[in-house]
Amino acid sequence: MTQAPAELAALQERMAELTDLGRIHAMLFWDQNTMMPPNGAGARADHSATLEVISHNKLIDPEVGRLVEALEPWADGEDPDSDAVRLVAAVKRDHEKAVRVPTQLAADMSHADALGQQAWQEARAASDFGLFREALERHIELRHRYVACFDDAEHPYDLLLDDFEPGLTTAELRPLFASLRDELVALVAQAAGEDGAARNDGVFSGPFEADDQRRAVMVVLEAVGFDPDGWRLDPAPHPFAQSLGPTDVRITTRYDLHDFGVAHFSALHEFGHGLYEAGIAPELARSPLGQPVSLGIHESQSRLWENIVGRSRPFCGWVLPMLREHLGPGIPAGVDADTFYRAVNSVQRSLIRVNADETTYNLHIILRFELELALIEGTLAVDDLPDAWNEGMQRLLGIDVPDDAQGVLQDVHWGAGLIGYFPTYTLGNLIAAQLWTRVEEDLPEIEAQLGRGELAPLSAWLQEHIHRHGRKFPPRELLERVTGDTLRPEPFLAYLRAKLADAGAL
Amino acid sequence: MTQAPAELAALQERMAELTDLGRIHAMLFWDQNTMMPPNGAGARADHSATLEVISHNKLIDPEVGRLVEALEPWADGEDPDSDAVRLVAAVKRDHEKAVRVPTQLAADMSHADALGQQAWQEARAASDFGLFREALERHIELRHRYVACFDDAEHPYDLLLDDFEPGLTTAELRPLFASLRDELVALVAQAAGEDGAARNDGVFSGPFEADDQRRAVMVVLEAVGFDPDGWRLDPAPHPFAQSLGPTDVRITTRYDLHDFGVAHFSALHEFGHGLYEAGIAPELARSPLGQPVSLGIHESQSRLWENIVGRSRPFCGWVLPMLREHLGPGIPAGVDADTFYRAVNSVQRSLIRVNADETTYNLHIILRFELELALIEGTLAVDDLPDAWNEGMQRLLGIDVPDDAQGVLQDVHWGAGLIGYFPTYTLGNLIAAQLWTRVEEDLPEIEAQLGRGELAPLSAWLQEHIHRHGRKFPPRELLERVTGDTLRPEPFLAYLRAKLADAGAL
Repeated sequence: MTQAPAELAALQERMAELTDLGRIHAMLFWDQNTMMPPNGAGARADHSATLEVISHNKLIDPEVGRLVEALEPWADGEDPDSDAVRLVAAVKRDHEKAVRVPTQLAADMSHADALGQQAWQEARAASDFGLFREALERHIELRHRYVACFDDAEHPYDLLLDDFEPGLTTAELRPLFASLRDELVALVAQAAGEDGAARNDGVFSGPFEADDQRRAVMVVLEAVGFDPDGWRLDPAPHPFAQSLGPTDVRITTRYDLHDFGVAHFSALHEFGHGLYEAGIAPELARSPLGQPVSLGIHESQSRLWENIVGRSRPFCGWVLPMLREHLGPGIPAGVDADTFYRAVNSVQRSLIRVNADETTYNLHIILRFELELALIEGTLAVDDLPDAWNEGMQRLLGIDVPDDAQGVLQDVHWGAGLIGYFPTYTLGNLIAAQLWTRVEEDLPEIEAQLGRGELAPLSAWLQEHIHRHGRKFPPRELLERVTGDTLRPEPFLAYLRAKLADAGAL
Repeated sequence: MTQAPAELAALQERMAELTDLGRIHAMLFWDQNTMMPPNGAGARADHSATLEVISHNKLIDPEVGRLVEALEPWADGEDPDSDAVRLVAAVKRDHEKAVRVPTQLAADMSHADALGQQAWQEARAASDFGLFREALERHIELRHRYVACFDDAEHPYDLLLDDFEPGLTTAELRPLFASLRDELVALVAQAAGEDGAARNDGVFSGPFEADDQRRAVMVVLEAVGFDPDGWRLDPAPHPFAQSLGPTDVRITTRYDLHDFGVAHFSALHEFGHGLYEAGIAPELARSPLGQPVSLGIHESQSRLWENIVGRSRPFCGWVLPMLREHLGPGIPAGVDADTFYRAVNSVQRSLIRVNADETTYNLHIILRFELELALIEGTLAVDDLPDAWNEGMQRLLGIDVPDDAQGVLQDVHWGAGLIGYFPTYTLGNLIAAQLWTRVEEDLPEIEAQLGRGELAPLSAWLQEHIHRHGRKFPPRELLERVTGDTLRPEPFLAYLRAKLADAGAL
């Protein structure tokens, strides 16, 4: 690398500050969702808004644009894979996206997101979509105004997607999800068990006290790589992971008295997210490159740990005696490793996305994608959304939706104005399977290792190929670098079919 | 109030933002001392520094000075007790203090504070003052440079005091502490029990499991006014209180297996701090007036709850059955209300300030005041500090100091560059007693109320006279408004003598 211009250090310093503000915002979010007393919400909203305004102003500062512009000619002559060159590109992207959106529109969206969540909460409590209709219309109107700030998209939905999965387009996603949908509908028809059976065939039905669940979860987490000196585990109603730095990773889980599966698989899921954040190269950590590159890649890490590892036959065999030791007779005596493995891979049609099994899960997502795309395209009116939802649940999963609370109102996302977010959940599943084909090539002993609870080689592989890069390579490029492949559903479908067959569901 | 100039709203908005940043900083501090995994410290230092720089730059912004200047002529014609007029005065003070200190000096001090704490930690661990000498010399040198930024102080120590107790002077404090010292030395000579006896005469010696202690503490706190919807209680090695807003108050305590008194009295102490923050008028909360006015007044609230309430005969009588119910046989069967009351008011010479009883406590503070004053005046060399400490402990408390760790190195304050802070602990005790004489006049039933655990009238009185004002009136003015009196030691000494006599120690 040639002598870097002075502008590079100036840009790095500004971006370090901006990154710190982002981490602080993460701290506020974590606290709000784990620790804050309920009456703290009012003041917290002010604190968040203040941080957001300060961060936004720092990002749109014309001096940032000037520094980027001054650095581009230099960057053109450097190694295109160097951190500095990638930093300039990332800042350029972030700055340009931010300056396109007028401050007033950003404030309106922020405001509508807060109001929309409130309206959604009331609507869900009353199971009455009518109470949410207006907020959703406002969100869609604002998204159209947002999209209009940019001029280079083929499809308006592309710009919404881009906020969560940079570079992915509607033109790619639509056929991909359509073929996945058709395959999954057929697979569910073959594999689904009895409607209304206990989740996980009852192996986790307990009852289990929260303290016992926590102890069991911690034993598993510490065995797979949770480091108490740099991580925390706390309960949260909607489990999430948050990182305040690679050595301060906070994950959460939820304890359901009658379903230890919730705590166990949520914890593995969030562990996967946490490991990504923990694995980012220290030299990137205090920069815009020091974060997960997209929600799809992020979700690939959580789903890999939750499903590909956590629901694999060898891991199930390894983990069962540990769980039994800490959960006692809550796990029925007749459950052996094979029963356990079959149980956690059982397929069931169900109403609620967050409770769905690995096979049906993506149909829940595809429904949401189809509906929000239609809303944005204007081919579906907000008033018709509940009917379209119910029709979709029948079409994709073959089940009747009894009410809006268990239907169209079940998720917070649309309430919070998050449109274009849902697809990333399924992307995560697809990418995880694509990565796993490489894992199996590079770590031929992986099955045996999972059976012995030796997760260090897998963690090291993930860090080497995914985590350490942070946001350095855009998601498409990252996937290609690691797998030599583009995003596609076949590896996921092959993986799923093989497992369902092995677990006796096919 | 006449139509306020547009500058008022502009100033208020800037100050609301600055207040939010202060609250966020409090959040980081709270998390760091209760929740953060140990390895999070490095990133957290960056986050704190970034917030500090942003806050500092917002405070010294010339536009703040211009707004204040523009508002002063208007303020001169308004009610001098109005919030707006007091806001302008408070911002003027903060802004002017901040702009006097060059950014480089502020950064040097910040840096030295961090290094000093580290050096102190190592020195205390090794019980070797020599390892801390250099850091302390650096602190003193920096304080002299800090003092030199201002030109209107009679004594250099005045400027250090002013950061913690605005407006108080060395000329006032020196004779006040000298007379208090002489009275207390005589009182301790009369009242002190056997050296080496168990603290609190063993009534709290347990052992008590932390979970049981926590339950007992919570029962007492909820009975006296801790609201779970707006407060939290967590363990912390050095108990503190922090408020993120009047409806988000975080207090902490510490659980010592063999001394429940630590948890009980720390919790009441921090509850007093928390109640102050919770009681600030909502209309001041998001402004520089929305915080406790000084450390002395803040400490008066904590000491009032810990000692004047918590160690009173009627409160002891009320609380003992509750503690017994939740702590079980850890409290010896023979302990009745009178024994309990005498035990928690026993007087003992001891080495460690934070463990000292109410009577000896202020001698620990006066020693520190005398020494830091001498260091700043240059009449005591840093090298001679340990000897001066040991001599002072002998002179004031009649005990030998076995080593530096239990002597001059016991507190973090000097390590962190906090010089001028210690006196506020004793101010708190004096002010609490002065306030209590007014409480007794205004609430003639207070003794009976304490005996029934009816704390609401006291809390309401404190909110009306102290809490709601936040930082609106400078501490001297606030004390005079409430008590019609100036700061003096007699009410404290009278209160203490009366209690020691009642508790059989005199």
